[in-house]
Amino acid sequence: MFPQHIIAKKRDGGVLAREEIGAFVQGATDGSWADYQLSALLMAIFVRGMTPEETAHYTDAMMRSGTVADLSSVPGIKVDKHSTGGVGDKVSIPLAPMVAACGVPVPMISGRGLGHSGGTLDKLESIPGFRTDLSLDEYRAQVARIGCALIGQTKDLAPADKKLYALRDVTATVECIPLICGSILSKKFAEGIDALALDVKFGRGAFMKSKAEARKLADALVRVGRAGGKNISAVLTSMEQPLGRTVGNALEVAESIACLRGEGPADLLEVTLTLGASMLVMGGVAPDEPAGRQQLEEVIANGAALAKFREIVRAQGGDVAVIDDPTRLPQARWQEPLAAEANGFVQDVDAMEVALAALRLGAGRARAEDRVDPAVGISALVKSGAQVRRGDPLCLIHANDRTALTEAGARLRKAILVGDTPPVIEPVIGDVVAETTPPWSARKRVD
Amino acid sequence: MFPQHIIAKKRDGGVLAREEIGAFVQGATDGSWADYQLSALLMAIFVRGMTPEETAHYTDAMMRSGTVADLSSVPGIKVDKHSTGGVGDKVSIPLAPMVAACGVPVPMISGRGLGHSGGTLDKLESIPGFRTDLSLDEYRAQVARIGCALIGQTKDLAPADKKLYALRDVTATVECIPLICGSILSKKFAEGIDALALDVKFGRGAFMKSKAEARKLADALVRVGRAGGKNISAVLTSMEQPLGRTVGNALEVAESIACLRGEGPADLLEVTLTLGASMLVMGGVAPDEPAGRQQLEEVIANGAALAKFREIVRAQGGDVAVIDDPTRLPQARWQEPLAAEANGFVQDVDAMEVALAALRLGAGRARAEDRVDPAVGISALVKSGAQVRRGDPLCLIHANDRTALTEAGARLRKAILVGDTPPVIEPVIGDVVAETTPPWSARKRVD
Repeated sequence: MFPQHIIAKKRDGGVLAREEIGAFVQGATDGSWADYQLSALLMAIFVRGMTPEETAHYTDAMMRSGTVADLSSVPGIKVDKHSTGGVGDKVSIPLAPMVAACGVPVPMISGRGLGHSGGTLDKLESIPGFRTDLSLDEYRAQVARIGCALIGQTKDLAPADKKLYALRDVTATVECIPLICGSILSKKFAEGIDALALDVKFGRGAFMKSKAEARKLADALVRVGRAGGKNISAVLTSMEQPLGRTVGNALEVAESIACLRGEGPADLLEVTLTLGASMLVMGGVAPDEPAGRQQLEEVIANGAALAKFREIVRAQGGDVAVIDDPTRLPQARWQEPLAAEANGFVQDVDAMEVALAALRLGAGRARAEDRVDPAVGISALVKSGAQVRRGDPLCLIHANDRTALTEAGARLRKAILVGDTPPVIEPVIGDVVAETTPPWSARKRVD
Repeated sequence: MFPQHIIAKKRDGGVLAREEIGAFVQGATDGSWADYQLSALLMAIFVRGMTPEETAHYTDAMMRSGTVADLSSVPGIKVDKHSTGGVGDKVSIPLAPMVAACGVPVPMISGRGLGHSGGTLDKLESIPGFRTDLSLDEYRAQVARIGCALIGQTKDLAPADKKLYALRDVTATVECIPLICGSILSKKFAEGIDALALDVKFGRGAFMKSKAEARKLADALVRVGRAGGKNISAVLTSMEQPLGRTVGNALEVAESIACLRGEGPADLLEVTLTLGASMLVMGGVAPDEPAGRQQLEEVIANGAALAKFREIVRAQGGDVAVIDDPTRLPQARWQEPLAAEANGFVQDVDAMEVALAALRLGAGRARAEDRVDPAVGISALVKSGAQVRRGDPLCLIHANDRTALTEAGARLRKAILVGDTPPVIEPVIGDVVAETTPPWSARKRVD
C-alpha cells in the first residue's frame, strides 16, 4: 500500500479501509510515512471527513500504536472522565478522589495544557513533591491499592497521536471532529478503562464555541467510544464563564481541596457531582444518578473524599500538609484586589478574557515549551448575579510581575461587566447527549 | 503571515490574496515553510481549487522564485511551444528549427521525461556530443545569434516548482489543473518568451484521457497565460495512437531529421505545421496560419529548416554528421521485426501499450534517477488503416536485452490490432481551444 494511493482515495472522498487507516497510523508511528504525506492525508481527512467506522478504526489504530495499559488484574469497573477543557476547569482533581472513595477505580492519565492555564498535571504539580511521571507499573499498582492514580502521559502511550497532533497544530488541521475523536479516545482507551464520562464544553471559553458544535463532537465521541466497546456518557456544560472562582494552578488546587471539604463554589460542585454520579452508575456501585449523587455527597460530608485525596497525594510523593494548610502551596509575590468601579450586579464574566489575563500572568503556555508559574492567577472571582458595591473586590490577582499584574487587571476589568439589574443566570449543566447506562454486565437481558 | 492561517483559509474554501500565495511560494523556495505545511496547502488547493486570479498569482510567484531569462536584447518576438506530452511526441525537434528558419526566435527550455520515453532533452542527447546544459548567458547568446537554443532547465529556473513538484508527486496532488498550470507556465515564462503555442494532448497515451479534461486544462492554461501578458494559442491533439512511427530517443531524432527533409510521417508533419503556423503568426512573420504553413513548407523544401537544425547541433557541440547519416546515432544490438499474424487492416495502435513496451526496452524512466538507453525503442510502426499481409512487419523492435525484446514484443502484439475491414481514421488535430492572434503590437486598434 503506497501512501500516495491511500491519500488519493481520501482526497477523492473515498472511505478508507481498516488496513489503509492502519498503514497511515503505523506510518506515523514508525516514520515510514514522511511528514508531508501524513499532513497531506490529514488535510484530505479534514476536508472530506471520515465515517464513524473510519473514525473507530483510526482510534483503535492510534490506541494500539503504543502500550495499552492492562488493568484487568485490578478488580472493579475502571471509569475515567474526560473534559474538552475550559477556563478554571479543575473538575478532575476533586472528582477522581470522590469517585474512588465511593469504590469505583479511577485510572486517570492527563496531558499538559496548551493555553490559558495549565492542564490537570500542571495543577497537581503545584503541590510540592507531587510526581506525575509514574511508570505504567506504578500506575497500575497504585490504582489497585488505593483506587486512583493521576499521572501524565508516558511516551509509550499512543505515540501516533503525539506525532499527528504536533503536525495538525502546524498544518491547520486541528478543528476536525474525526481527528479530535481519535486523539481523545485513543489516549483514554490506552489507560485501560472500561467506561468514560465525557464533559464536552461549549461557549467562548471552550474549544467549541456553540452548543451545536459541542453536540456534534459529543455525538461523535459517544458513537466512536461505544464502537470501541466502552460504556460512554456525555453531558454538555457551559464555558461562557469560568468554572468556579479561581484560575491558575495552585489556586485551582486550593479550590479543589475546598470542594472536597464541601466548601467549593456551586457551579464546580454541580459539574463534579453530575459527572461523578454518571461514573458511579457506569462503575456499577450506584443504581442510578440520584443515588450516585447521594453517595458522592456522603463521601464529602464524612471526609472520605478528602482522605482519598490525601492518600493519592501521599502515594505520589506530594506534601500532604498542603491539604490542611493550602497557604503552603506556592504563593505569588503580589496579591491585589480588583475593585468594582460602581454599584450593581455582575452581568457577565467573559471566560476567554479571564483566560487571557491568567495567561498574561504566567499561569498557562503560549507555546508548548513554555513553563507555567504555579503561583499566579485569579482567585475570589465574582460570579454572574453577584451584587457588588463600588470598591468591593471583583477578584484577587496573584502576580509575580508588576507589568503583568497591571495588564491582567485591565483585561479582567473588561471581562467583568457590572450593570444595574440582576441578570438571567444560565445553568452550567447543558444537555445530556448520551444517557448514563449501567455496566453492560449488570444490564438485564431483554431478549 | 503564519503558514497555518494561509492553509486554513484555503482549507475552508477561501480565495488567497496575492501576498498569501507569494508567502507560500517563497516558503517553498527558501525553506521557511516546512514540507508538511507545503503539502497540507497543496492538498487544500487540490480539493478546494484556485480561481483564475489565484492561479495567475501562483504562476507569477513561481516564475519569480528564480531567474527569469531576459531576452529583451534579442530582436523579434520570442515564441515557444509546449506540449503536455505523449507517446512518440518529438514535435519540438523539427518544429524549433523550422520556425527559427522562418525568422521567429525560439528559446526552448525543456525538462527530462518521466515516463515511457525520454523528454526532448533525452532525445537530443542521443546525438553524440550534444550539450543541453548551456548557461543562461550561452542560451541568450545562441538565440540572438542563430534564432534558437534547445536547452535543459537550470537549477535557478523556477526552483519553487522543482520543490513543489517533487512534493506533489509523493502526496497525491499531481492531477490538479491550477497546480499544473502554475508548473507549466512558470517555467515557460521564465524562458523570457513573448508568446506560446500550446499542444494539449488527449487520449490513452496522454496525461488527460478525455478530450473534455484536456479542454479544461487548455482553457485554464490559456486564461492564466494571457493573464500573465503572453500571447497564447492552444490546440487539442489526439494521443490515442503514437505520434509518427518511432518511439525511443535516437529513433525519434532520426524521424525528426526525416521530417525536416520533408520525409516525415503525415501525422507528425501535420502537428508540426499546425503549431508552427501558429507560432509564425504570433511571431509576427506571417499574416495568418495558411500563410505561415506555406512558409514552413518552403523552409522544408529549400533545405533552410534542416540547415537551421545543423546550425543548432553544431552550436551545441553535437556531431552534425548524424544529420546526413542517422546510422551514426546510437544503434541497439538487436533490431527485430514484429510480424503480422494475419492479413487485414490495422484497426488500432494503442499508444499506452506502445509506451509501456518502449519503457520495458529502456527508452524511458520508471523512476527519476533511472538512465535512459538512447538506442532502444520502436521504429517503422504501422499506422491505423494500413493494409498488412501475414508476415509483414508491424514494427521494428530495437533492443539491447533479449528478455526485454521478448516482453516488449508481446506488449506490441497486444497494442496493434489487425482486422478485416478498413477502420475509420480519426484526425490527429482535434479542436482549436484558443485561436492564434497576431502579436499585440501588430493588432489594429478598433476603438
